[in-house]
Amino acid sequence: MNAIVQEKTAQAASILKELGVDCWLTFVRETTAGGDPVLPLIYGHDLTWQSALIITASGESTAIVGKFEAETARRTGAFQTIVSYDQSIQPHLLEVLDKFNPKRIAINYSLADVYSDGLGHGLFQVLTGFLEDTPYLDRIEPAERIISALRGRKTPSELERIKTAIQTTEEIYQHTFAAIQPGMTEIEIADLMQAQVRERGLETAWEPAHCPAVNSGPLSSAGHVGPTEIKLEPGHLLHFDFGVRQDGYCSDIQRLAYLPSSIHPEPGSELRKAFATVVTAIQRAADALKPGVPGHKIDQIARQTITDAGYEEFKHATGHQVGRQTHDGGGILGPLWDRYGDTPNWPVETGQIYTIEPSIIHPEVGVIALEEMVRVTEHGAEFLCEPQTELVILRS
Amino acid sequence: MNAIVQEKTAQAASILKELGVDCWLTFVRETTAGGDPVLPLIYGHDLTWQSALIITASGESTAIVGKFEAETARRTGAFQTIVSYDQSIQPHLLEVLDKFNPKRIAINYSLADVYSDGLGHGLFQVLTGFLEDTPYLDRIEPAERIISALRGRKTPSELERIKTAIQTTEEIYQHTFAAIQPGMTEIEIADLMQAQVRERGLETAWEPAHCPAVNSGPLSSAGHVGPTEIKLEPGHLLHFDFGVRQDGYCSDIQRLAYLPSSIHPEPGSELRKAFATVVTAIQRAADALKPGVPGHKIDQIARQTITDAGYEEFKHATGHQVGRQTHDGGGILGPLWDRYGDTPNWPVETGQIYTIEPSIIHPEVGVIALEEMVRVTEHGAEFLCEPQTELVILRS
Repeated sequence: MNAIVQEKTAQAASILKELGVDCWLTFVRETTAGGDPVLPLIYGHDLTWQSALIITASGESTAIVGKFEAETARRTGAFQTIVSYDQSIQPHLLEVLDKFNPKRIAINYSLADVYSDGLGHGLFQVLTGFLEDTPYLDRIEPAERIISALRGRKTPSELERIKTAIQTTEEIYQHTFAAIQPGMTEIEIADLMQAQVRERGLETAWEPAHCPAVNSGPLSSAGHVGPTEIKLEPGHLLHFDFGVRQDGYCSDIQRLAYLPSSIHPEPGSELRKAFATVVTAIQRAADALKPGVPGHKIDQIARQTITDAGYEEFKHATGHQVGRQTHDGGGILGPLWDRYGDTPNWPVETGQIYTIEPSIIHPEVGVIALEEMVRVTEHGAEFLCEPQTELVILRS
Repeated sequence: MNAIVQEKTAQAASILKELGVDCWLTFVRETTAGGDPVLPLIYGHDLTWQSALIITASGESTAIVGKFEAETARRTGAFQTIVSYDQSIQPHLLEVLDKFNPKRIAINYSLADVYSDGLGHGLFQVLTGFLEDTPYLDRIEPAERIISALRGRKTPSELERIKTAIQTTEEIYQHTFAAIQPGMTEIEIADLMQAQVRERGLETAWEPAHCPAVNSGPLSSAGHVGPTEIKLEPGHLLHFDFGVRQDGYCSDIQRLAYLPSSIHPEPGSELRKAFATVVTAIQRAADALKPGVPGHKIDQIARQTITDAGYEEFKHATGHQVGRQTHDGGGILGPLWDRYGDTPNWPVETGQIYTIEPSIIHPEVGVIALEEMVRVTEHGAEFLCEPQTELVILRS
C-alpha cells in the first residue's frame, strides 16, 4: 500500500466527476521501457504485459493485468477489481467496458502536455484495433485535463514531500554560500553542492550534468549547459539553478550572489536595477496568480515588467509546475508560443505548485534570474520557499 | 563524448542503408517525463523543447534542438549539424527534410515493440500536423526494424558492459549460495543479495521489490511477486531470478539450489527429472539459435521439450533480449500469442543477446526454472554465463 497511490486514485474519480467524463482508461505495456508517466501516481509499480487501469466517475476501479502481476495489483490496495489473463487482454478489456458502457472514454494522449501523452502511437493503434467494431472507438478522447488536474492538484502527502525538498534545497544553498571561496571554478562550486546531495542520500532534481547550473560573471552562458572552468572572481555575479528530488518529489530554485571586489565593494547600479526588476516581476506575477486565470496572463505580467524596464524579453516561460518532476507538465505560465502548444491557455487551479522565474541576461553583468516556488490557494499564491529580495553578498 | 552514442549513431546509418530507408527521424519533447527509450543510444542526454534527431542512410546527422540545448547537442560529438531555435521547430524541420528530400521517413512507433514506440500518440499528431501539405506526410513509416536492430546488435562497448554485469551476477550468486542458512526467509535471502548490489554501488536490473525473485519450496508462487516470509526448509528447492545493471547494461540469470534434508539428502526423482528437462530444453534452444531463424521456432523447441516430458506448457516466452533493460524489446523467442504481437516472427540477428529460460511449475517441488544468457554469432549461440547443469547443493 502506497499513500500517494491511494490518495491519487481517489482524487481521479472526483476529477472525472467534475469533468463529466465517465471512464478513464490507462493502457500500458512493458513500462520498464519508460512507460506512462501517470503510472507512479495511480499504480506505483511497473507493468509487463499489456495492462489496463480503468477508473470511473462513479469511483469503480479495475486493473486488467497479466497473470504474473495479479498479486502485485492486488497489493496496491487501489483497485477494487483485478482481472488477470494469460494470452490476450482484448476479451477482458471489452468485458469491462461492456459492464460500464461509458459514453466518454479518456485515454492518455495529448498534443500539448507530455505527462498526459504516455500512450505510444503504436500502442494507440493496438488499442483502437481492439475496439474496432465496438461503439467505444468513437467515444475516445484525450485524458489531458484529467491527468493534468491529477498531477497538478497536490494531495497532502505530496505537498508535504515538496516542502521537505524545498527545505533541503534552502539548507544546501546556505551551506554553499558560506563555503564558497573566490577563485573556485563553476565546476568546483557545483561539486560542492552535489556532494551535499549525495551525503543526504538524495538525487538532484534534474540530470546532474546541469544540476546545479552555476554561472559566474558575464562570460558564462545561461541555460542548459553544465558548469564550466570559469572562475569566480571579485566583482562577479554568481547565478545558481538547483533542486533536489526527495521521496519522489522535486524542488527548483534559482539564487543570486555577489562577490565584492576592491573597486566594487557594492553591486553596481546595472546589477541592482536588473535584480530589482526581477524581484518586482516575480512579486507581480505572484500577486496575479489566482485560480481560473490562464497561465499566459501571468506570464505576460512578468514578461512585460522585464521589457518595460528596457531589457530584452526572456526566451522561456515565466513558470512551470513542479511535482514528481522539475518540469511537471500541465498548464504553464508561458507565452502563446508554438512550442508550448495549448498549455498557456489552461487555467490555474487550486493546489497546483508553480515556479516563477523571469530572467535578464545582461552582457556586462551575466545571468540575473531568480526562481521562487509558490502554491496556488483559493485566495492566491503562497510562497513555499523564502523568496530572495536581496543579493547574497559572499565573503571576499 | 560518449562511446556508446558514437558507436550507435554510426551503426544507425549502416542499418538504414541495409534496410533501404533513407531517413530516420526521432521526434521528442521534455524527455525527463520518460522520453523515447532510443534517446540514451543516440543522444545520451535529455531534451526539453520539441527536438528532432535526423540520421540518413548516407551518414548525415542533424539535431534540431531548443536554443538552450545547442551546446549540449554539440558536445555529444555525434551530430554533424546542429540547428537551434527559439519559438517553433516546424520551419527548421521542414528545411532539413527539404534538404534531404527522403523517400522513406522512419519515425518511432511500433505496434509490436515497446522500445520502438517512443513517440506518444499526441506528439505523433503534432508531427503529422507539421508535415501537413508536404509530400513527407505520406512517406512516414514505423522505425521498429531500425530501432530493434540498433538496440539488439551490440557494439563492442555494449558487449563488454553486459559481460561485466554477468560476471558480477555470478559472483553475487556464489557468495549467496555460501552464505545461505537453513531457516532464512525468502525476504532475508533477497536482502543478502541486495546488500551485495549496494556494496558494489550498483542497482538491481529490475525493480528491487522483485529483484531477486526468491522462491523456496512448493508453496512459494512463481512470477512477478516479491519474496515472502516463507522459510527455507530442509528438502526445499530454492529458485532465484536476479540481475544487476552495471554501467547502464543489464544481466538476467535464474538459478536453482537444493537444501538437503535428513530424509532426502539427495534431490528427489521428480526434481531431478524436471531439472534435467529444463537443462535439455535450454541446450536444444541454444543449438537452434542461429541468425535468420524466427524467434517463435526457438521458442517452440524449448516449449515442446517441456510438454513432451509431460509437463504443463509454461505461460511465458522462452527468451527475450537483454541490453540497457532486462527485457530489452525487439524480436523475442516467444510463441505466436496476441500479447507478443509480431515480435516472435522477427528473425534472430547476429550480435543480439538473448535469455533462454524455460520453466516448470511442479505442485510438489516448486519452481524449476533456469535462465541463461547467450549471444548470437554467425555460427550460432555462445553462452555468456556459465550455464547451470547441476543443482547447487546448499550446506544443511
